[in-house]
Amino acid sequence: MSFESSGGNPTPLVPVILSGGSGTRLWPLSREQMPKQLLPLLGKQSLLQDTLQRAKAVSSTPALLVCNSGHRFQVAEQLRSSGCDAATILLEPVGRNTAPAIAVAAHEALQQHGSAAQLLVLPADHVIVDTEAFVRAAKQASELAGDHRAVAFGIRATRPETGFGYLESGEAIAGFAGAAEIAAFVEKPDLERAETFIAGGRHYWNGGMFLFPARWLLDQLAVLEPEMAASARAAWSNADRDADFVRLDATAFQGSPSNSIDHALMERIDGSAMVTLDAGWDDVGSFTALWQLGSADDDGVVKVGDILSDGNHDCYLRADHRLVAALGVRDLIVVETADAVLVAHRNAVQDVKRVVETLRAEGRTALLRDSPTAG
Amino acid sequence: MSFESSGGNPTPLVPVILSGGSGTRLWPLSREQMPKQLLPLLGKQSLLQDTLQRAKAVSSTPALLVCNSGHRFQVAEQLRSSGCDAATILLEPVGRNTAPAIAVAAHEALQQHGSAAQLLVLPADHVIVDTEAFVRAAKQASELAGDHRAVAFGIRATRPETGFGYLESGEAIAGFAGAAEIAAFVEKPDLERAETFIAGGRHYWNGGMFLFPARWLLDQLAVLEPEMAASARAAWSNADRDADFVRLDATAFQGSPSNSIDHALMERIDGSAMVTLDAGWDDVGSFTALWQLGSADDDGVVKVGDILSDGNHDCYLRADHRLVAALGVRDLIVVETADAVLVAHRNAVQDVKRVVETLRAEGRTALLRDSPTAG
Repeated sequence: MSFESSGGNPTPLVPVILSGGSGTRLWPLSREQMPKQLLPLLGKQSLLQDTLQRAKAVSSTPALLVCNSGHRFQVAEQLRSSGCDAATILLEPVGRNTAPAIAVAAHEALQQHGSAAQLLVLPADHVIVDTEAFVRAAKQASELAGDHRAVAFGIRATRPETGFGYLESGEAIAGFAGAAEIAAFVEKPDLERAETFIAGGRHYWNGGMFLFPARWLLDQLAVLEPEMAASARAAWSNADRDADFVRLDATAFQGSPSNSIDHALMERIDGSAMVTLDAGWDDVGSFTALWQLGSADDDGVVKVGDILSDGNHDCYLRADHRLVAALGVRDLIVVETADAVLVAHRNAVQDVKRVVETLRAEGRTALLRDSPTAG
Repeated sequence: MSFESSGGNPTPLVPVILSGGSGTRLWPLSREQMPKQLLPLLGKQSLLQDTLQRAKAVSSTPALLVCNSGHRFQVAEQLRSSGCDAATILLEPVGRNTAPAIAVAAHEALQQHGSAAQLLVLPADHVIVDTEAFVRAAKQASELAGDHRAVAFGIRATRPETGFGYLESGEAIAGFAGAAEIAAFVEKPDLERAETFIAGGRHYWNGGMFLFPARWLLDQLAVLEPEMAASARAAWSNADRDADFVRLDATAFQGSPSNSIDHALMERIDGSAMVTLDAGWDDVGSFTALWQLGSADDDGVVKVGDILSDGNHDCYLRADHRLVAALGVRDLIVVETADAVLVAHRNAVQDVKRVVETLRAEGRTALLRDSPTAG
């Protein structure tokens, strides 16, 4: 699908899906080799597959996917099985945060679709409930960006979250409902400050979704991050291409500084815009989020898998491989997998990372690396 | 080992171990084919093996073991591996409660050891912490019983338990410290009544342990329960004997009325005595009991198996096959096995039987019958 840009030329809108994370906050579900974007956390599809489907709803241009080389077969299989074979999979030999990944994708987009290409940058591990609202925001962002500016998605903040960065909205942009100049990027605030953000109504969550004109983006990076720009260009142009993958050149990519697109670009330039998104967004950063996104019964119990629940209240109960019977418990998260079981009070979910640290210190890497095959 | 009876003749004291139960209150640990007496609940040995060891401490006469035919290989292997090969294993084709089982054992004891044989009847699924105190009580019971009376073991009641029957002690018996006539057998009381028992100090728990002169026992049953006596005699005399097992005749044994030794005999005769036992006895009737018998850390957490515990209080955490990580929970019982996980509040442990009923109603017999092989 193409839009008419302000200049009257067709603008190819290229979804760029960043599948870089390997979080441990959802252990034992997520593992180093099975990060949360590859898991069917909320339905039959993985978050990556949901993201691909959302991208398709915005643009018929095949997506570019940037992922960790170690995840390539799982990623490719998920693309294949959800009918997204046309996507290009760019493999990172190591993680260098989002800016180099987006730069590499920009080169690929320009090669595939010409100099008018725009990048719709989407993390692969987020949930968006309202696809129509997302499509409206993405199309608005595309028009707003044209060939000369970055557009961020400002997510309506529904709670004083201290785990996200915020966008402060500035002057409204005429002709684009809900769009505004970005007055400031705000790092993760403390709770008091986050509460003033919610009260004030001018701050939005920065969910890491952006729209960039590809040519413009590379020009900016060449000035602001010349070493990164050169490394990304070399990693892409020296890539090893076969029928399935674009393997970025390891030496070149490893040589790039590691930085987020926020720090490398967005916070250092003026004139960026934001569109607002109110679409049931969540980054699924913990079991609490997964719980809130699930559908609870009258007692507030979310049940996933083979669960026998009797007399429980306000729980997230998940059985991936075996029966879990829960009796008379409250405010509990139970997650069963083939090789580990987590039982945590809702207020202790952040301590999951301590479990992961302990397992690592004890050298129990099998429990951290791969999801076990069902027993 | 033999005692001098009051008549001056040696009295063979034959341990009779009843391994009939197939409780479900410890599901998912216990199963139909893996009842609690066969499980290593508290250490490396099973409760059956512990019981055999206690019996050896009282008497060197090899034990008679009466068990469900379906458990025969597990029982035989546990006897073999704990050096009790000399025991005779009598197989019940069906369960008929304790009275027919004891009658069959009485015939076997008389045949093996002559008419002076006494039976020390011990359920296989109880815990007794203080073996020395048990040995003293058993020896006292043997002397007291002689060849003419039944002796029950009255267990010092430490709480107003409503799940047990009680023995009311009557007149003290001269020359036997702590021994007394039995004034009455009391069925499971309600809480109020149980509390008066504890306050009064004359009531003891009836733990189902008895000492009987074998010949005397069969004479009593012939009068009180002639049909049962005849069936047991026929089941034993027509048994199929091989190198490993005494297989009771199925038709005869099935024909016996089903009854406990308490109802069939003890409650219907006068002149029975009791010895008192204060030896850390428990029938391990629920996870709460198992918890109390385990050794807790400073936070009241009992950990069995591969447990990663962080910030928990007053919990029983048991991992039989996989890692269990518990975070910030309280008053919880977590039991992990290869095919099922139980998570229950301490106040809900009695509801485990509802889980079992549900699984049975749903035809999920694999989860009820056998313990799964480790995954």
